[in-house]
Amino acid sequence: MGREAKSAGRSPSAVLITDANVAEHYLGPVAGSLRAAGLEAETVTLPPGEGSKTLDTAGRLYDRMLQAGLDRGSAVVGLGGGVVTDLAGFVAATYMRGIPWIAVPTSLLGQVDAGVGGKTGVDHPECKNLVGAFHQPAAVLADVGALATLPEEELRTGLAEVVKHAMIRDARLMGRLERDTDALLARDPAVCEAVVACNVRIKAEVVSADEREGGLRRILNYGHTIGHAVESLAMASGGRLAGMPVTHGRAVALGMVAEASIAERRGRLSPQAAARQRDLLARFGLPVALEAPLDADRCLGIMRHDKKASAGRLRFVLPEAVGAVRQTDDVTDEEIREALALLAGG
Amino acid sequence: MGREAKSAGRSPSAVLITDANVAEHYLGPVAGSLRAAGLEAETVTLPPGEGSKTLDTAGRLYDRMLQAGLDRGSAVVGLGGGVVTDLAGFVAATYMRGIPWIAVPTSLLGQVDAGVGGKTGVDHPECKNLVGAFHQPAAVLADVGALATLPEEELRTGLAEVVKHAMIRDARLMGRLERDTDALLARDPAVCEAVVACNVRIKAEVVSADEREGGLRRILNYGHTIGHAVESLAMASGGRLAGMPVTHGRAVALGMVAEASIAERRGRLSPQAAARQRDLLARFGLPVALEAPLDADRCLGIMRHDKKASAGRLRFVLPEAVGAVRQTDDVTDEEIREALALLAGG
Repeated sequence: MGREAKSAGRSPSAVLITDANVAEHYLGPVAGSLRAAGLEAETVTLPPGEGSKTLDTAGRLYDRMLQAGLDRGSAVVGLGGGVVTDLAGFVAATYMRGIPWIAVPTSLLGQVDAGVGGKTGVDHPECKNLVGAFHQPAAVLADVGALATLPEEELRTGLAEVVKHAMIRDARLMGRLERDTDALLARDPAVCEAVVACNVRIKAEVVSADEREGGLRRILNYGHTIGHAVESLAMASGGRLAGMPVTHGRAVALGMVAEASIAERRGRLSPQAAARQRDLLARFGLPVALEAPLDADRCLGIMRHDKKASAGRLRFVLPEAVGAVRQTDDVTDEEIREALALLAGG
Repeated sequence: MGREAKSAGRSPSAVLITDANVAEHYLGPVAGSLRAAGLEAETVTLPPGEGSKTLDTAGRLYDRMLQAGLDRGSAVVGLGGGVVTDLAGFVAATYMRGIPWIAVPTSLLGQVDAGVGGKTGVDHPECKNLVGAFHQPAAVLADVGALATLPEEELRTGLAEVVKHAMIRDARLMGRLERDTDALLARDPAVCEAVVACNVRIKAEVVSADEREGGLRRILNYGHTIGHAVESLAMASGGRLAGMPVTHGRAVALGMVAEASIAERRGRLSPQAAARQRDLLARFGLPVALEAPLDADRCLGIMRHDKKASAGRLRFVLPEAVGAVRQTDDVTDEEIREALALLAGG
């Protein structure tokens, strides 16, 4: 890890950004590896959680980096989950108009998604990831050993994105997930490593074909058009919806179920394929239905305000089969309402 | 102007960023042009001056842009001098990971330099332009009519960069500047237009060959290695040095004189060429000497901390003739001390 950081920059100075939870387990070895490679790394340990992903925190990081004498040849290392890697990537993108950075994601979500693809950013109080930049890391170092200490719910959040990758791009991965469900939940290192590698490949393929989300990259939004609306509704109600706690992963699972149901009603997706997705999500402990109906008007309103809407048109990614999707902007409000009603068994 | 903004974005919403001085003269026509093109522009008028170019101001701009419902297809228009265009470009670079922007520079410096090239950013209390990004404007609209109301000292600041462009790249431009000195100082529109167009071409040629400053772009730093140190020293003394007020343009003029003297002492630049540069700067009302010697140790310290130093080596751009420069990192501290001493007639 020190070696990669050393070769990413041209200076012997670096900043290592992490959070208190991750630091407890991994700061020692990572800082040691940087030292062994001859890098003087200033370490900044942030409070864990989304609350650290702000412009204010970025401002304090610039202060520390300037005090530590970081120049254009210095590197930023982000060690942690998506919050840490998004923030580390953003300060790397904007310090002296861009310096190299290395992502060391320790969560499954970071390893299969957030750490790969160069999206960096911080939250605005009213809009997640409002402020950001595209800035590819010089290297992504994913050690599946770090998954051993990952809280159960965070493992599930990563698994929702793993199912998404299989659905949009890789029927073989879907087969593997169905076969190795228990080993994955038990965090079997060999299975985790193979699955992480496969997901990084899928994400990297899609992103390198289309870094800026003009076309292909949008397929990564499968499940997220409705999922983000569900997540925003939940955020506005203290993180709960219809009596259930809603994390990002849970919202994406519900979003995928709803968006697949639109495709199924259109006769574009077989009931069998929709059922395979639903069953796998359920086996991973992710929700596939809600106890009570959602407020469809509010959901539609949020979707229209979402930054993925451009000039007022909602874009959807609809599955056509396991491993294949199609982009469209002709989904009607009526279809969205039906899909939301179906989520609550309506 | 409204037409360019309209075609830069895909949405009917835009934000127009300006400062109070510029607004007085140009906000009406520019806002009218945006409206005529069918754009609803939210206008933000900032206090004039470098004090507005901060991360805090950027944060307030994101708030306003979000409130105004700007999405990924919206455009940012920066109407003003370098402070406004640097800031407008930076918020455009980072709002929703990058939206289109248009530079409408109203100062000579903005028209020939800051507005062109895609460098955007904000200041840190201890370091100018510490936080920034590369983000090319969709269009740069330079109306030399705006130069009519430009304060004398700001005109000079622009002229220092104009002389720099001639020295690094264009002997014909140098001839024109020597011939049309008085017409330029009188802001003759036809002469200004020809000179601005020529400077934009030079800057754009250099930048498009090398957007990220790996090689050719560095020649734009001619006069700035020593010039930045002089400017920083002056900043630390309330903007004055050896009894003289020091603006960016004055510092660059002194930097060019000092850096040319290094080349001359090395026998790489003829005394005639150095004299032509010095005489032209003086006719433009820019300083070519200091009344009292500078603190060479502090200057050297600042240069080493400057972000253009990478891994501790100072890079210089030395003229070889009018219109031609060479990059080098072998200038010794002794040569720098001599050049600084020469500035004070030593």
